[in-house]
Amino acid sequence: MRIHLQNPIDDPLFHFSRAMWDAVADRATDRAVTIGDTQTDFVAAMSDTEALVCDAGIVKAYLPCPTPHLKLLFVTNAGLDRLAPFDWLPPGVALMNNRGTHAAKSGEFGIMSVLMLANRVPAMVTHQRAGRWQKIWGAVLAGRRIAIVGLGTLGGAVAEHAHRFGMAVTGVRTTPAPHPHCERVIATADLDAVLRGTEFLVLACPLTDATRGLMDRRRLGLLPAGAGIVNIGRGELVDQNALCDLLDNGHLSGAVLDVFDPEPIPEGHRLWTTPNLVVSPHTSADDPATYNPRSLEIFLANVRAYEAGQPLPNLFDTVRGY
Amino acid sequence: MRIHLQNPIDDPLFHFSRAMWDAVADRATDRAVTIGDTQTDFVAAMSDTEALVCDAGIVKAYLPCPTPHLKLLFVTNAGLDRLAPFDWLPPGVALMNNRGTHAAKSGEFGIMSVLMLANRVPAMVTHQRAGRWQKIWGAVLAGRRIAIVGLGTLGGAVAEHAHRFGMAVTGVRTTPAPHPHCERVIATADLDAVLRGTEFLVLACPLTDATRGLMDRRRLGLLPAGAGIVNIGRGELVDQNALCDLLDNGHLSGAVLDVFDPEPIPEGHRLWTTPNLVVSPHTSADDPATYNPRSLEIFLANVRAYEAGQPLPNLFDTVRGY
Repeated sequence: MRIHLQNPIDDPLFHFSRAMWDAVADRATDRAVTIGDTQTDFVAAMSDTEALVCDAGIVKAYLPCPTPHLKLLFVTNAGLDRLAPFDWLPPGVALMNNRGTHAAKSGEFGIMSVLMLANRVPAMVTHQRAGRWQKIWGAVLAGRRIAIVGLGTLGGAVAEHAHRFGMAVTGVRTTPAPHPHCERVIATADLDAVLRGTEFLVLACPLTDATRGLMDRRRLGLLPAGAGIVNIGRGELVDQNALCDLLDNGHLSGAVLDVFDPEPIPEGHRLWTTPNLVVSPHTSADDPATYNPRSLEIFLANVRAYEAGQPLPNLFDTVRGY
Repeated sequence: MRIHLQNPIDDPLFHFSRAMWDAVADRATDRAVTIGDTQTDFVAAMSDTEALVCDAGIVKAYLPCPTPHLKLLFVTNAGLDRLAPFDWLPPGVALMNNRGTHAAKSGEFGIMSVLMLANRVPAMVTHQRAGRWQKIWGAVLAGRRIAIVGLGTLGGAVAEHAHRFGMAVTGVRTTPAPHPHCERVIATADLDAVLRGTEFLVLACPLTDATRGLMDRRRLGLLPAGAGIVNIGRGELVDQNALCDLLDNGHLSGAVLDVFDPEPIPEGHRLWTTPNLVVSPHTSADDPATYNPRSLEIFLANVRAYEAGQPLPNLFDTVRGY
């Protein structure tokens, strides 16, 4: 298998190195690997590359280009919404995303965010910004009601932590199949009924035609007074203005958001100053120290499946969008 | 047993009610209870009260006064440093503090604070205050080195969570007896050697003559570059100015502080604006929804021990100071 690895040269944190490859690769097998930096490197490698590993930025910048032997395209992002529609994908190439790599980091960020809401940290930092000492009390998580929209890598990891803290976990996903860390799982179509009893809402689903604007103004208004929101999915899942309105008027007690529409948040945007809102710059899922090694391990598991004629664990469904 | 309960009338969150007492009291036993609001109530009740339950504010405001029958004084705070020296305590009265009541809430606040440091939330809110979008990455907790000073109710609860997240936990206390959630426990006297290898330092010990100023400028400087600090003990454990200097110059990556010297933090104090510092207004340990019921349960366990002639679980050592 002829493999090419390339991530943007201007992003040193996620740049591939030969050492990273050597640390995870099974040296016994016959795999010829190149690592590229420039567009010239990329185009040259594509003349014989069979498996390409790169991020969505490389795909957008350099594809399509002639890829006569390409069979596997492993994109190192989990959400590929920015690559839709997928008509650029050469026929016969299997597209994979990086689902699975974000579990540990996203799970910890997610439960941290829920703890921050329960402890009223968004309100505390708002008071701090004003230089105001104001006693404000939180409460423990045990027994409290959390709803997690999306039970993939991210949502599943948050559910596991929430369950361990004794929360009453409701999972929400397209098909309401049971989940080991959820007391109940309901279909996204039934979301309205769940929102009314939700103290903590965590958005952890991909952005697709079906989820864009899922938490519109009407649905946000169904959350009870004092509820809090975490978004580690995509900014476009939520009506941001409606969310800011509900934080401004105090109906929602807090929000911890890692994703926005657009990103970066423009200068002077109300998100910067809305009370009881904590802004994380879309880094919740990524741990640079472990990201590339983990990505390469997941990629290699897919290569082994491909070589064994088995289904690819990370095959991306371009119709569903995840 | 003649019992009197009184907390400040101007603190509705922690005010005792008859309903709270009825919910936890063993109705079968012969216990006459009054609940007071005013100083007149207090003085009148003291003529025959044998067991008094109140907070440190009531003690400071109304004691000493004639208490001819008083045998048990249960103070609903855990740290009684503001009542030292204890020469006001009538001879023959057993003083108890409220240790144990804060475990769940403090443990969750503590691990939340560590997760915030690991995810660089203090830096994120500093960037947010400036309206600046700047990517900043965190890392997961597994394998990372945390030192927890104090392994009582608070520190023990944080150690349990840290252990569960896979951290390498070092406990620090007066006598280095083993602890079920610590890989190792060292004596406070050996703190210097531990600090050099500590990524996360959590202060969770009482304020005593031995711990005042424990983290002075010299010891703070022993922490490696990038370390973070959590303080849920007392503000006077740390040289606050030195801590702010190390945050200003970037040697420390972040701090989450719940306690300060003095409190409230004065207007215009540098603590309000020091970068990468999150201020919590000394509420980390308290969950008003469960505080009084839990306190009364702990008090009643001590009454039962007293009536059975057994040692009081919450007896306060006025010489050690905890």
